[in-house]
Amino acid sequence: MVSFESDYICGAHPAVLKRLAETNYDNQHGYGTDVYCERAKEKIRKAIRESGGDGIDPEKLQVEFLVGGTQTNATVISSMLTDYEGVVAADTGHINSHESGAVEFTGHKILALPGENGKLRGDDLEALMEEFYGDENREHMVFPGMVYISHPTEYGTLYTLDELTQISGICRRYGMRLFVDGARLGYGLMSYNTDVTLEDIARLADVFYIGGTKVGAMFGEAVVFTKGNRPAHFMTSVKKRGALLAKGWLLGVQFDALFTDGLYFKLGRHAIDMAERLKKIFAQRGFRFWIDSDTNQQFVILENGFMKKLGEKIVSGFWSKYDEDYTVVRFVTGWSTTEADLDALEAALDDCLG
Amino acid sequence: MVSFESDYICGAHPAVLKRLAETNYDNQHGYGTDVYCERAKEKIRKAIRESGGDGIDPEKLQVEFLVGGTQTNATVISSMLTDYEGVVAADTGHINSHESGAVEFTGHKILALPGENGKLRGDDLEALMEEFYGDENREHMVFPGMVYISHPTEYGTLYTLDELTQISGICRRYGMRLFVDGARLGYGLMSYNTDVTLEDIARLADVFYIGGTKVGAMFGEAVVFTKGNRPAHFMTSVKKRGALLAKGWLLGVQFDALFTDGLYFKLGRHAIDMAERLKKIFAQRGFRFWIDSDTNQQFVILENGFMKKLGEKIVSGFWSKYDEDYTVVRFVTGWSTTEADLDALEAALDDCLG
Amino acid sequence: MVSFESDYICGAHPAVLKRLAETNYDNQHGYGTDVYCERAKEKIRKAIRESGGDGIDPEKLQVEFLVGGTQTNATVISSMLTDYEGVVAADTGHINSHESGAVEFTGHKILALPGENGKLRGDDLEALMEEFYGDENREHMVFPGMVYISHPTEYGTLYTLDELTQISGICRRYGMRLFVDGARLGYGLMSYNTDVTLEDIARLADVFYIGGTKVGAMFGEAVVFTKGNRPAHFMTSVKKRGALLAKGWLLGVQFDALFTDGLYFKLGRHAIDMAERLKKIFAQRGFRFWIDSDTNQQFVILENGFMKKLGEKIVSGFWSKYDEDYTVVRFVTGWSTTEADLDALEAALDDCLG
Amino acid sequence: MVSFESDYICGAHPAVLKRLAETNYDNQHGYGTDVYCERAKEKIRKAIRESGGDGIDPEKLQVEFLVGGTQTNATVISSMLTDYEGVVAADTGHINSHESGAVEFTGHKILALPGENGKLRGDDLEALMEEFYGDENREHMVFPGMVYISHPTEYGTLYTLDELTQISGICRRYGMRLFVDGARLGYGLMSYNTDVTLEDIARLADVFYIGGTKVGAMFGEAVVFTKGNRPAHFMTSVKKRGALLAKGWLLGVQFDALFTDGLYFKLGRHAIDMAERLKKIFAQRGFRFWIDSDTNQQFVILENGFMKKLGEKIVSGFWSKYDEDYTVVRFVTGWSTTEADLDALEAALDDCLG
Repeated sequence: MVSFESDYICGAHPAVLKRLAETNYDNQHGYGTDVYCERAKEKIRKAIRESGGDGIDPEKLQVEFLVGGTQTNATVISSMLTDYEGVVAADTGHINSHESGAVEFTGHKILALPGENGKLRGDDLEALMEEFYGDENREHMVFPGMVYISHPTEYGTLYTLDELTQISGICRRYGMRLFVDGARLGYGLMSYNTDVTLEDIARLADVFYIGGTKVGAMFGEAVVFTKGNRPAHFMTSVKKRGALLAKGWLLGVQFDALFTDGLYFKLGRHAIDMAERLKKIFAQRGFRFWIDSDTNQQFVILENGFMKKLGEKIVSGFWSKYDEDYTVVRFVTGWSTTEADLDALEAALDDCLG
Repeated sequence: MVSFESDYICGAHPAVLKRLAETNYDNQHGYGTDVYCERAKEKIRKAIRESGGDGIDPEKLQVEFLVGGTQTNATVISSMLTDYEGVVAADTGHINSHESGAVEFTGHKILALPGENGKLRGDDLEALMEEFYGDENREHMVFPGMVYISHPTEYGTLYTLDELTQISGICRRYGMRLFVDGARLGYGLMSYNTDVTLEDIARLADVFYIGGTKVGAMFGEAVVFTKGNRPAHFMTSVKKRGALLAKGWLLGVQFDALFTDGLYFKLGRHAIDMAERLKKIFAQRGFRFWIDSDTNQQFVILENGFMKKLGEKIVSGFWSKYDEDYTVVRFVTGWSTTEADLDALEAALDDCLG
Repeated sequence: MVSFESDYICGAHPAVLKRLAETNYDNQHGYGTDVYCERAKEKIRKAIRESGGDGIDPEKLQVEFLVGGTQTNATVISSMLTDYEGVVAADTGHINSHESGAVEFTGHKILALPGENGKLRGDDLEALMEEFYGDENREHMVFPGMVYISHPTEYGTLYTLDELTQISGICRRYGMRLFVDGARLGYGLMSYNTDVTLEDIARLADVFYIGGTKVGAMFGEAVVFTKGNRPAHFMTSVKKRGALLAKGWLLGVQFDALFTDGLYFKLGRHAIDMAERLKKIFAQRGFRFWIDSDTNQQFVILENGFMKKLGEKIVSGFWSKYDEDYTVVRFVTGWSTTEADLDALEAALDDCLG
Repeated sequence: MVSFESDYICGAHPAVLKRLAETNYDNQHGYGTDVYCERAKEKIRKAIRESGGDGIDPEKLQVEFLVGGTQTNATVISSMLTDYEGVVAADTGHINSHESGAVEFTGHKILALPGENGKLRGDDLEALMEEFYGDENREHMVFPGMVYISHPTEYGTLYTLDELTQISGICRRYGMRLFVDGARLGYGLMSYNTDVTLEDIARLADVFYIGGTKVGAMFGEAVVFTKGNRPAHFMTSVKKRGALLAKGWLLGVQFDALFTDGLYFKLGRHAIDMAERLKKIFAQRGFRFWIDSDTNQQFVILENGFMKKLGEKIVSGFWSKYDEDYTVVRFVTGWSTTEADLDALEAALDDCLG
């Protein structure tokens, strides 16, 4: 059945699959100490360099590969925080809402601030920090040591360059690290409505990751420490969290393929193109959107009976109850979405609309 | 200097100190396996039984002693929660705001709800639970396994019996444990404006503690598991958290003294009497209160210059900024507060008021 | 270069790769809630049932898939242990020696006993338990709540059925769970010298895993809870540890392929055949073995100069220093080892021997 | 009944108790920010300085107070270790054997080495480090980041200055911190047979603690960071572990009393005098000792029937089974042991010997 349930409903882009097959008998060393990982790291560094100005020191970009998103978030956060520190996040941030307490499992608190359409507001962050350092009892509190934002957010929204710059500036001033969760970074960077480049992310964040699982890879996330600030013996910390892949080259091979000939960005743009057509399909038929998203996640308000009927033809995702009669339904495009999928959606909608 | 800074500015009530001295050479067994702990446990069970109706099974009351509040909270919560569970609390709850992340250090998330004057609203809790069990993605979330409330709250406010009954009922319905932080329980039970008895707490909560540190003891909190539900090998879990006092009888001796001839309740009432006079002293002079508190913590709004001047004569506690010109200042009475202290406060106020 | 470095030097068996490619565009649901996982679980239950007598209740076999070995060990151990418990293991056990403290990271102690050729001796375990329950101070100690053994061990050795039965019996008697790390289970079951079947493992252990990473899969381990004893909300515990694979069906697809037409066992037997020839190759040339292994890991004692020379033609793994002049070198066969690889080894040895 | 069960069978030395009573109504600030803590810290720094040569920088001695031993061990170790590190200890070390896994609860592994009479051998430590840094797989292992020794050990034995110097040198060479558990430090320093001074400990260790609970205080341990190396925001880390005492001045008052007029050392010497007489009492009657201890813990081998008879008159502690007929029994003297106690022991022995 045609599915807009998520951007991880298919295996891997054919170019990725092909490289996995080609390298299948390569007799590699394990744990990421192989030639493909090296090659992929170099290509990622190059992509960052070429995406923007000269605000970064390419020598200080350190790339590491992990398997999945929650694993990456918990590993990065807990290996960078000091004992007395916690991480600030929007209450809707993935780490705060949908990771089963993975950050807390490592012994660190999430300091949640109310988000706005999924985004952490710089002014709220500034206010938190002023309040914290103005509080005489702060030694009894958790020190804000890191700020976590996702770009795009869990609601498909994007930070502007100004917003990122403000948040980054606050982090610098207060000695906090800025961590950008880029599970869907490819879709964010290739939005029609963004002024943020990959180089901006690398320049403004202390660490971020380039999501592979949702953007063409079978699995895998590429963490980039941007200031030569990778924690010492990071491999050991990764292993300690059960996150070290024995056949580490599988990650290198995939990111090597994704960063060859700009494939990662092409896949991102493709999904955005598909999302824009999807938006039009719904808009033309008078459907309302729950949120204004410029990326590959779209949230449409459907009447419950209609939702049920549509569900017999098209797979989508329950997001939240809107009211007694309506539901917010998530439609997600991805690298694997085709025009034919959208044709099918269009037909199904018209069919249900009768 | 006369101090209303907190209710832990003095050592111990003379009766407690006397018992500590009398038993100093008793050659006791360590770790709480002594006769004083047994005696104190029995007296606490008796006090619970005698404070109310027959809603509890006294055979199922299990008492354990710990040294301090944060330690007690983290130990009780983490030893009762299952791996996939977290604890619900008001955002202003002590565990969420002023314990440096002690609960998270044990690997569990606090699910914070906005409180109202320090209290968790039953309706908010109900809504959270409905939302949680209505969410198809809940396996990716932290399961609410316990509810934490403090009585009195960090703002000196009290739950009514109806409110406690509602919260307890929600917990039962959803299979959650109810934990009442009673760091200042004595002051809450002896408020002029409460319909809640010790027996109510024992009946409605699954576990609670009777605070000693702030109510006459040198240190010590008495945890009561109310349904024969003390975790197996609790002593080992306590030790694992570095919370097992070698000379455990020190705790037993103190609670034995506090629960002899109703001393604990007398101390509670004394502090309330002092608080009521303190309220009058401020009210008569036209000062505004930030919150309406019926217990021993009072929050007065002082003009910054006035606060500074008063601070030269009387010790109180900074609570929070009210606005540019005013500050919320906490004045706390306790078992050790005297009429002379209040006379001094009165004189100091009049002096500063000119 | 021909490599005997480990059994995870290649991607996946062609049959596995083929299935991954075939199912690449299947639009699956995530997190293991797909049809391939269901199918693979059923095949694994069937393989267990068919491998032995009727000592197990097939209805109680619960299968779950995880990505890697350390992750599996830490997740299973920490989600099954109670707060006050630790896990007993041979000092050479993988969890104790080469997992960077992953078990301790979850808050639990490993109670290490000296192993014998990688194996935990039943008599040592019995003695430990007798000592523990005879110790009046045991409430200050970590309670042995689980026994961890690997089969085959890290040294390639195997438990006999008698030995497993003894250990399992001790566990039952003392209320401990028995966990068998089967990272190389396929190679153990297909050894020429074993009387242990898959059904024996399922019958005697409370939980074990069937290693995929080292036996034909690209990655993946199949955990089997044998007594209907899977921890409640296990998916949430897996997520909490960052171990939940978004595209969970990738694991199902692979194990489906491995348990179709007995492929898993055929791959196991192939590696054993290769290992037996490898042993002969070394033995015939007078080399000494460090340990007597009946599985796919062989430990040969090489003179340092010779080791260096051989290393120019054949990749193997440093294991440990034997003495000043000799080194223990590990040669591992696997599902991907070919007769040609062994021919190359033979030629290289003869060449180096001059 | 006369008791030699442990050195924590009595409350506090009268001088300590007196100071607690005198300061009972002092209206102190909480959490150790009081004048008594300051005073006690200064006295401890002075005692260290005056106990030896000029090998230490007194400006860099940072003193902090905690409540109990296990709490101190877990707090110091976990706040000083980095993510990928563990702590080396003798297998008989208190943290490894009798703290219910408190160190592991903080996420760190104990790397246990077989001890000799309770002591960690320098040569074993050196061998461990050589092996670790010679192991090509060490990134998969726990890095030794700290060495824990107790002085006196759990068996009453003492390190010589040479032994301490060797261990300290190894730590420096390998970048490990040396932590000395001084739960009974006063008894060790005042042994008739030691060449180790308090200044030696401060010079050779990176952190150690001066035990109060067992040497005259009601409770309390004074941690000394010796090189200006107290972890940042240590108070917050202490709070995070539930180890911050609200009435922190109670600790300052006690250590102030103990380090006035050398009381701590006098109490230490008194217990040693008592232990030496106790040794003689047993030796003169032909009893065998299980271990040769120069401090206040003595281990005597008693025939089981005799042990039972003696137990009716004198309290001592079961240590371990010696063989079928004999038991190792621990007799401990302390600051509260009197000549009358020893007279009673002598009489009881003679009585039982018939």
